[in-house]
Amino acid sequence: MSDVAEAGTGRRSRGGGGAARRAERTAVSVESARFIERNIPNFEVLNEEALQIIEHNAESVLAEVGVNFVENPEALQRWREAGADVQGERVRIPRGLARQLCSSAPRTFTQHARNPERNVEIGGRSLVLAPVYGPPFVRDAEGGRRYATIEDFRNFVKLGYMSKWLHHSGGTVCEPTDVPVNKRHLDMLHAHMTLSDKPFMGSVTAPERAQDSVDMASLLFGADFVQNNTVMTSLININSPLTFDGIMMGALEVYARNNQAAIVSPFIVGGAMAPVSVAGTLTQVLAEILAGVSYSQLVRKGAPVIAGAFVTSIDMNSGAPTFGTPEASHITYGTGQLVRRLGLPYRSAGAFCGSKLPDAQAAYESANSLNMGLLSGVNFMLHACGWLEGGLVSSYEKFVMDADQLGALHHFARGVDLSENGQAMDAIHEVGPGGHYLGCEHTQANFKNAFWRTDLLDYKPFETWDEEGARDTQALASARVKRLLETYRQPELDPAIRESLDDFVASRKAAVPDAFL
Amino acid sequence: MSDVAEAGTGRRSRGGGGAARRAERTAVSVESARFIERNIPNFEVLNEEALQIIEHNAESVLAEVGVNFVENPEALQRWREAGADVQGERVRIPRGLARQLCSSAPRTFTQHARNPERNVEIGGRSLVLAPVYGPPFVRDAEGGRRYATIEDFRNFVKLGYMSKWLHHSGGTVCEPTDVPVNKRHLDMLHAHMTLSDKPFMGSVTAPERAQDSVDMASLLFGADFVQNNTVMTSLININSPLTFDGIMMGALEVYARNNQAAIVSPFIVGGAMAPVSVAGTLTQVLAEILAGVSYSQLVRKGAPVIAGAFVTSIDMNSGAPTFGTPEASHITYGTGQLVRRLGLPYRSAGAFCGSKLPDAQAAYESANSLNMGLLSGVNFMLHACGWLEGGLVSSYEKFVMDADQLGALHHFARGVDLSENGQAMDAIHEVGPGGHYLGCEHTQANFKNAFWRTDLLDYKPFETWDEEGARDTQALASARVKRLLETYRQPELDPAIRESLDDFVASRKAAVPDAFL
Repeated sequence: MSDVAEAGTGRRSRGGGGAARRAERTAVSVESARFIERNIPNFEVLNEEALQIIEHNAESVLAEVGVNFVENPEALQRWREAGADVQGERVRIPRGLARQLCSSAPRTFTQHARNPERNVEIGGRSLVLAPVYGPPFVRDAEGGRRYATIEDFRNFVKLGYMSKWLHHSGGTVCEPTDVPVNKRHLDMLHAHMTLSDKPFMGSVTAPERAQDSVDMASLLFGADFVQNNTVMTSLININSPLTFDGIMMGALEVYARNNQAAIVSPFIVGGAMAPVSVAGTLTQVLAEILAGVSYSQLVRKGAPVIAGAFVTSIDMNSGAPTFGTPEASHITYGTGQLVRRLGLPYRSAGAFCGSKLPDAQAAYESANSLNMGLLSGVNFMLHACGWLEGGLVSSYEKFVMDADQLGALHHFARGVDLSENGQAMDAIHEVGPGGHYLGCEHTQANFKNAFWRTDLLDYKPFETWDEEGARDTQALASARVKRLLETYRQPELDPAIRESLDDFVASRKAAVPDAFL
Repeated sequence: MSDVAEAGTGRRSRGGGGAARRAERTAVSVESARFIERNIPNFEVLNEEALQIIEHNAESVLAEVGVNFVENPEALQRWREAGADVQGERVRIPRGLARQLCSSAPRTFTQHARNPERNVEIGGRSLVLAPVYGPPFVRDAEGGRRYATIEDFRNFVKLGYMSKWLHHSGGTVCEPTDVPVNKRHLDMLHAHMTLSDKPFMGSVTAPERAQDSVDMASLLFGADFVQNNTVMTSLININSPLTFDGIMMGALEVYARNNQAAIVSPFIVGGAMAPVSVAGTLTQVLAEILAGVSYSQLVRKGAPVIAGAFVTSIDMNSGAPTFGTPEASHITYGTGQLVRRLGLPYRSAGAFCGSKLPDAQAAYESANSLNMGLLSGVNFMLHACGWLEGGLVSSYEKFVMDADQLGALHHFARGVDLSENGQAMDAIHEVGPGGHYLGCEHTQANFKNAFWRTDLLDYKPFETWDEEGARDTQALASARVKRLLETYRQPELDPAIRESLDDFVASRKAAVPDAFL
C-alpha cells in the first residue's frame, strides 16, 4: 500500500508502473475459479481383466459374506423387500442386485450455492475441490498445535472463501471443540452460510442434526428450492469392513429423503479395515460402495449420491496410518475406474500427509495425493487443502500452501491448446536458430496467461530472497494467511435471511441442554 | 548400536527382540534396487490428431527454418552428404530425412556398470534413476550455501552409492570448483569409478575431456569391452532454439565413435528459448531431437542415444525459471509420446524445484515432477534427487529426501497384483463385517512387503515425535546424511585397476597447466 501511495504522490512518471505492478502482485484476490472440467484423460492402473476379476469378487463378497446394517430395523426391512437375504443384521445381496439398484443414481448433479456463480457440477469430467474435514486440532506457525475453536472454524471458512482455486466451502473444516457437541453443527452451518457464498456440506453426526441442516438450508434457499435442488453434499462414512451403522445411515436417510447428496464412503486404513493387498482392498471398497449407494436408492430412487473412497495404508511397524503412498495411489486409481463403470460421481484423494508440520514431508505426500486425485478422475475432492498430521490437525499455513497448488491442477487439467496460436509456428519462424522468444510478438500476446503462476511460492533470485529474510514456505504461508484474513470481506446476504438463520440457531440451542460427549 | 550391545549383554531374553528390531531399523542399508520395469501404462496428454499436427510442424521447422551447426565444418559436410540443404551454418533437413536417420538408433541398450549387478537397461518400459547434475553450489543444514568442492563431489557419489533406489551414479553431481576447470573431469570420473560401482556419465565440456572419459573407462572395463559395450551415458545439451554448438557436438562425436551413449537434450526455458505455448515448445523440442539424434547416427550408425527434454517454464514477472509447473508437465508428457513414436529411449523429469531450501515448496515442486516423470514413460531420469534452487545447488538433505521418494516410484510402477494372494478373498471371508485384518493369516503372511515404507519420513505418534525433538524433514534428512556418510564403505576394486586410474589422472594433470576459466 505504501508503494501505491508513493507512486501516487511523488514519482508517478518513473515509479508508477513498477509500483502498480507491485501493488497488483500484493493485492488479495477474491476471484473464484470455476470447478475443473478435465480436458485430459484419466490414468488407468487396472486392465479390463483386472476390473472384471474385482467386480466379480465384490459381488461374491456381497452375496456370500454380506454386509451388516446395525441398529437399523427399517434398513433391514428395505433390503428384505428389495430381495436381499437378511439374517439378523447381516444383509446378503444376490449377485447383480446392488449394481441394478445403483443404476438409478444420477451420473451427474448440480450442487447449488447461494451465489449461483459458485454452483458446481459433480460427476462426469468435473472436479470440485473442498477443504479439509474433521480435525479436532489446529496449528499455525505462531500458536503451534492446539484444540480447534469456533473462531478457528470461522477463519478457515473465510480462507476457503478467499481461495481462488477452492470451489466448495466444505463441512467440518475443524471441530469447534469450545461449542457443545450437540450444538456445534448449528454454528458450523451458520458460518458456511453467512461467511461464504460457496456450496457447503451438512451435518452427519446424528439424524436430527442432518434435519437441522436441511431446515437451515431451507431458510437460506427457500424450502421449495431445497426439495427440488441439491444444496448440500454430506459425508456418510462406512464403518469398514462391511458395516453400516444406524447413525450414519440415519443421516443418509434424512438427506436422501430431502433430495440432498450423500458421499457414501468406505473409510479404510489398508491392513486394518481392509486386506493388506491392493486388489483385496479394491474388492472390499467396491462391495461397500455397491451396498451403500444401493441403500440410498432404496430410501429414495434417484437421490444424488457420490461413491467415495477414503483409503490409506498402515505402517506395519508403528500401526500409524500413512499418506501419499504408492499403494494408496493404486487403490485410488483403481476405485476411480470401478466407479466410472458404475456411472457414479467419484470422491477420493486430498492433500493427505502424515507429517506433524507443513514441511517437505507434508508437501511430498500431499503433492503425490493431489496429482493422483486429478489423474484418477475424482469428481469431488474433500481435504484438498489444509490437512496435516493424518487428519488430526487443520493447518493454517498448509491450507494456503495446498490451495495454491490447486491452481496447478486447474492448469494441467486444461490439456494442450492445439489452436494456430498454440502451435506458434509463426513465432518459431520469426525467432529462428539462436534467437530468443522473450520479445517476439507471440510471447507478448500470450505471456500473461500462458503459464500457471503461484500466489505464494518463491521464484526470486537467491540474493533478493536472502535479503528479504530467507523465508521458507511456512513463513511465506504465514504471511499470506494474515493478509487474507485481514482483507476478508463478508459476502452480501439478505438481512432477513441472516436474521432467520440467527433465530433458528438461537432457538435450537435454547431447546436442549449442552452436551460435550 | 548401543541397543544391540545392550541386548547382547544384559537383557537378551526380554529385550533382544525389540532391540534387534530397533537395530534393524537404524542399520544403514547398502542394497540397491534393480532399475524400474514399469507394469503400469503411460499417461498420454495428446491425442492422435495432436501428435500428427506436432510431428508435421516439427518437420516443417526442420525443412523451412532449419538448425544451425556452429563452428563445425565436419558436421556441415556430414549433413550435405546425407542430403540436407546446407547454407553457411544453417542446415535445412528435407521432410522425412531426420526421422529415417533416427531409425538406426537402438530402441533399448544396456549400460554396463563395473559391478554387473548394477547394469541398467535404458529404453522400453524401464526407468533408470540418476542424481542431480551440474550445480556450482552445495547446501546443507549446518554449513548453509557455499561453492562446491571435490570433497562435496565425493560425498554425493558416496550418498548415491548408498541410496537403495538410485540406479546410477550420475555425472557432475556438483561442480568441484576447487579443482582447475580443465582437470576436474579427471577427479570426477575417478570418484565415480572408485567410490561407487554403479554406472556413470562421462565428461562433455570439451571433446578431449570426452576422450579422457573413454580412456579412463577403458582402464576400468578394458578397451575391447568399451568398444563393444556401452559403459557411459553422457549429457549433450542442445543450445535451444535450434542450435548445435561445436563443443557439445565434438563431445557427442567422441562418444558416438566409441559406441558410448549420448543424451541429446534440448535445454529449454519455455518463453525464452522456445515459444510461450506448450504445442509450440513441443514442436521445437521434437525438431531439435530429430536433428540431434540424426546427427549422432550420421557420426556412427547404430550409436546408442537417448532423446532428451529438459523443459521448464519462465516466470514472466521475474524472468526466473519455474519448476514443477503444469505447463512443464504437459511438455514432458507430450514429449514422451513423441519420442516413443520415434522408437527412442526418453530422458526427462527429475526432482526439480526453484526453492532455496529443502522445504515444502521444494517438495511440492519435486513431487509434481517425479510423479510426472514416472507416468510420462521416462527411461532415464537425471536430477532424480538432490536438485535445489533451480539447479544452482546440490542439497545434501534434499538428496536423501528425494532418494527416499524414489522408493515410492518403484512400488507404484509394480502395478496391482491380481494373483489369488493379491485378491485376498479368503481374508475377506475370514474377517467379515465389523472385524479387523491386523491379526488375520493373510495380513501376517504379507505385511512385510505389502506397503512401501520410507527410510526417512516421520510416521510416529505426535507425542513421541514431540519428545524426540519435533524435528522437521530437513532435520531428519540431516541426521540420515551423517549416518550414511559415516557408515559408507568403499566397494572393492582390483588394486591394479585402481593404480592405473590414479596414474592416468596424475599424468594428465601434469601434462597441462591449471585453468580456472
